[in-house]
Amino acid sequence: MQVFNSIKEIQQWSLQNKKQGKTIGLVPTMGYLHNGHLSLVREARKQCDIVIVSIFVNPIQFGVNEDFDEYPRDIQRDQLRLEAEKADAIFAPAIKEMYPGGYNTYVEVLGEIPGKLCGSRRPGHFRGVTTVVSKLFNICLPDKAFFGQKDAQQALIVEKMVKELNFPLEIVRVPIVREEDGLAMSSRNVYLDHEQRHEALILWQALQKAQESIRSGETNVETVRRQIKQMIVACPQAQIDYIEIYNASDLADLQKIRGQVLIALAVKFGSTRLIDNLIVEV
Amino acid sequence: MQVFNSIKEIQQWSLQNKKQGKTIGLVPTMGYLHNGHLSLVREARKQCDIVIVSIFVNPIQFGVNEDFDEYPRDIQRDQLRLEAEKADAIFAPAIKEMYPGGYNTYVEVLGEIPGKLCGSRRPGHFRGVTTVVSKLFNICLPDKAFFGQKDAQQALIVEKMVKELNFPLEIVRVPIVREEDGLAMSSRNVYLDHEQRHEALILWQALQKAQESIRSGETNVETVRRQIKQMIVACPQAQIDYIEIYNASDLADLQKIRGQVLIALAVKFGSTRLIDNLIVEV
Repeated sequence: MQVFNSIKEIQQWSLQNKKQGKTIGLVPTMGYLHNGHLSLVREARKQCDIVIVSIFVNPIQFGVNEDFDEYPRDIQRDQLRLEAEKADAIFAPAIKEMYPGGYNTYVEVLGEIPGKLCGSRRPGHFRGVTTVVSKLFNICLPDKAFFGQKDAQQALIVEKMVKELNFPLEIVRVPIVREEDGLAMSSRNVYLDHEQRHEALILWQALQKAQESIRSGETNVETVRRQIKQMIVACPQAQIDYIEIYNASDLADLQKIRGQVLIALAVKFGSTRLIDNLIVEV
Repeated sequence: MQVFNSIKEIQQWSLQNKKQGKTIGLVPTMGYLHNGHLSLVREARKQCDIVIVSIFVNPIQFGVNEDFDEYPRDIQRDQLRLEAEKADAIFAPAIKEMYPGGYNTYVEVLGEIPGKLCGSRRPGHFRGVTTVVSKLFNICLPDKAFFGQKDAQQALIVEKMVKELNFPLEIVRVPIVREEDGLAMSSRNVYLDHEQRHEALILWQALQKAQESIRSGETNVETVRRQIKQMIVACPQAQIDYIEIYNASDLADLQKIRGQVLIALAVKFGSTRLIDNLIVEV
């Protein structure tokens, strides 16, 4: 497995691989890899000749009061895990390599999809995501790029960007990977203390309960949101950021629950903000 | 020569050409081709195996009160000219092909360079340019893209975008082509009536005069701007939009004229806005 820090070097390497007719799969990550990330890598390994995993904690997608400095990092452990998964290359650039002095070019998806859920709470977040992802696409030249369903809104926005800017590649969405007790895997789970870790199980439980309720015939959005809310507020440390139910393909508001709907939650436990979601088909 | 209207088809064709090891040159145009455009095509023909010329009057780079509807179009004549230049393909998409319903993704260079000259007079113009150029790059997959020095600010912005978003390609700048009497070639020249056409010569004359004055030792920006202004205001129909002198590589303000400087003009003759420029090395 090769480790690249230089944009020029990995871009050349990718170009050479493409010239040899090899397909490239890219898994963009911020590192501190857990089994959720590794499931993306495994999917890329199955579908592509060459697997590149980028590890870059992207400063421009963090707000000023967010956890950029504290975001967990362990490149050596990441490297061992990726070797075990038979990734071909890691791309781990320095911040200055990605954003040299005077950097001023941004890619942005506007409109309804980025204006909801995390987009409305984290101004600039998705602009930071679409910008870095565009850069990674141009640098690594993937045929396919793998994104987790955990960040459902991110996947939708990246898909829209790829379609609208005509990137010559396909986005593959990979299902959420959960701990045995149901907590969605996240690099931020390490922030949770014992009690918070236990309380956080409510997210998955509430999503499952909502699914049950919808499958039993409930079509009222507010009723389902209220059911979820009641479960979460029963946890002493939980502070709800949002509980939303939208059309799964474009985050459009729903009069009634029907078709494919996305139930999305963001809840803080102490200072740790967790997200989780479930797509329910009616 | 092939004519493509479909993004998917030309993207596939470009991918196939690249797989065969061929280099692709892209000349992005808005059509109504004159010798300035053709000099770009000839340069591409010299440097690349495959030459693609895109013809697309890009609505999102025109302001609401600008000349999008009147912009001259003659695809048949363009096609004949490009056949004569041995271009390999024309890409001439419909507006809906490029911007389908709900389109909402934009690429933007912020900061000093787009805030000056035409950027400050035409809000949204360069965002429209960088967005369509990004799309054309992803669709046509060029190794080199050819831009005219006539649109000096556009060339600078596109170069900055390519560098900062890491597009795997090179921008080639091609010198301004002028009519025999010195008027810079432009599709908009057809708007000029006889008298305006004659008056418009003042642009090139004033640029040359400014160059002379700088070469004779004048280093004061204001003095040179005043000289140019005096020449232009003597034309009854000329209305000056801007006369500016900046550092040629980043449009930084100058205390004194030194290094490579860009002298850039935008002047209206009747309702026709013309631009011209000259780089002077001191």
